[in-house]
Amino acid sequence: MKFTKMHGNGNDFIVIEDLENKIKNEADLAQKLCHRNFGIGADGILLVRRSNSAQIKMTIINSDGSYAAMCGNGIRCFAKYVWDKKLVNTENISIETGDGIKTAYITAQDNEVLSVTINMGHPNFNTKMIPAIGVEEIINKQLEINDKKYIINSLLMGVPHTVIIDKLDNYNVEEGKFIEKNKLFPQGTNVNFCEVINSGEVKVKTWERGAGPTLACGTGSCASVVAANKLGYVDKKVKVWIPGGSLIVELSDDGVYMSGPAVTVFNGEI
Amino acid sequence: MKFTKMHGNGNDFIVIEDLENKIKNEADLAQKLCHRNFGIGADGILLVRRSNSAQIKMTIINSDGSYAAMCGNGIRCFAKYVWDKKLVNTENISIETGDGIKTAYITAQDNEVLSVTINMGHPNFNTKMIPAIGVEEIINKQLEINDKKYIINSLLMGVPHTVIIDKLDNYNVEEGKFIEKNKLFPQGTNVNFCEVINSGEVKVKTWERGAGPTLACGTGSCASVVAANKLGYVDKKVKVWIPGGSLIVELSDDGVYMSGPAVTVFNGEI
Repeated sequence: MKFTKMHGNGNDFIVIEDLENKIKNEADLAQKLCHRNFGIGADGILLVRRSNSAQIKMTIINSDGSYAAMCGNGIRCFAKYVWDKKLVNTENISIETGDGIKTAYITAQDNEVLSVTINMGHPNFNTKMIPAIGVEEIINKQLEINDKKYIINSLLMGVPHTVIIDKLDNYNVEEGKFIEKNKLFPQGTNVNFCEVINSGEVKVKTWERGAGPTLACGTGSCASVVAANKLGYVDKKVKVWIPGGSLIVELSDDGVYMSGPAVTVFNGEI
Repeated sequence: MKFTKMHGNGNDFIVIEDLENKIKNEADLAQKLCHRNFGIGADGILLVRRSNSAQIKMTIINSDGSYAAMCGNGIRCFAKYVWDKKLVNTENISIETGDGIKTAYITAQDNEVLSVTINMGHPNFNTKMIPAIGVEEIINKQLEINDKKYIINSLLMGVPHTVIIDKLDNYNVEEGKFIEKNKLFPQGTNVNFCEVINSGEVKVKTWERGAGPTLACGTGSCASVVAANKLGYVDKKVKVWIPGGSLIVELSDDGVYMSGPAVTVFNGEI
């Protein structure tokens, strides 16, 4: 079986063409291939399949065998792959995902993909949607955990996100664990520590719900810019520095656009 | 650059042919290639080079860029690689390593490598050699750390090893950290928790000095059998179950022989 290993800001994937829909044991396959010592090693696999409703279809399976409806870093890799391989012939690519049809916009120069832009949807501060319990909104709300005070902002950006805007040095990302599990959030929350550098630049470190610190969280980067913009700290177009690299997040009436890199690391056969 | 990804009981390596000795920036290359998100991902790289003193030469560089003189799991992969690729034409292969010339014995059937055997050298219970301070020998010695009593046995098996022979359920491998750092061991010690199943079989979990729990520690498996044999629990030929699989350890006057698998996972080009 041939494959291509790719990453988006360090969130890494094994891309496999399955245009004839022959792969049946997806969960098993993902667990085996994604094992970092016994397999190829990755956060997930991306299956390239034909679609009836879009130009192409992406199936994401996480390293633990579970399905992922969508992934901002994964879809950038996927878009670069199908464009590089000429499986599609436009720069705007409609991709069927578990979260509906998404459009990926390729920015290329001399036939090289420079970045891929995705519309990540609309943010929602409604606490019923996040969900969060017993409050109408969570904006600059003080939360005290283990004798430490946190000023939090919470919203739904695809998944629940909490954003703390402050100097990163004041926190250890591991503290996110306690906020994630706070009774305010019945389904937990991702936690983003966001430091504003200037009106067009922030640094973000994300604690991923159920997973821990991440190299790159696309929705967390978007949520951080949305919260920082709402509080007047940043403009509508912001460069986000994350441990795995950087992303550009742009707020618009159409939704939140995220642009970032997609890198092919190597091709292999297993 | 072409490469082959291999593992020995989960201890994984990127094998690269460098017969013309063209690779100069080895430390940089290892760090880049071994990164599990941005690179290929591995515990180390194995460079295949020509030797003036043996049939072939193995250079091991760890994922952090440091050199390793020898590695039991690595040399099994290396031996299978050079045999599969017909870079050598005998089943007994002399390999130049940073720890002198080693002989690897290939056991094959129908041109498939079943296992590779390596002479891992002689054990040494002399505390000056381990080194351990203030005692003449460490055999069934009681050590009390954090209000817990450990009965330890220590020896040099290439590197310092401490073996605790007991039910594995009585310990968490993480406790090895406290034994590693005990003042008895000025250079630290690897720590092996070893449960005797019967006179020909043991289970071993190893805390690696400076690294933590491992899937497979070749010298730790050997040290465990040496200690268990000295105390009369096992015979001279013992199957060792480790988290990453199993090994056969055989004690002889020539040294300690270790036999185990070597697996090719995939070929790639980066």
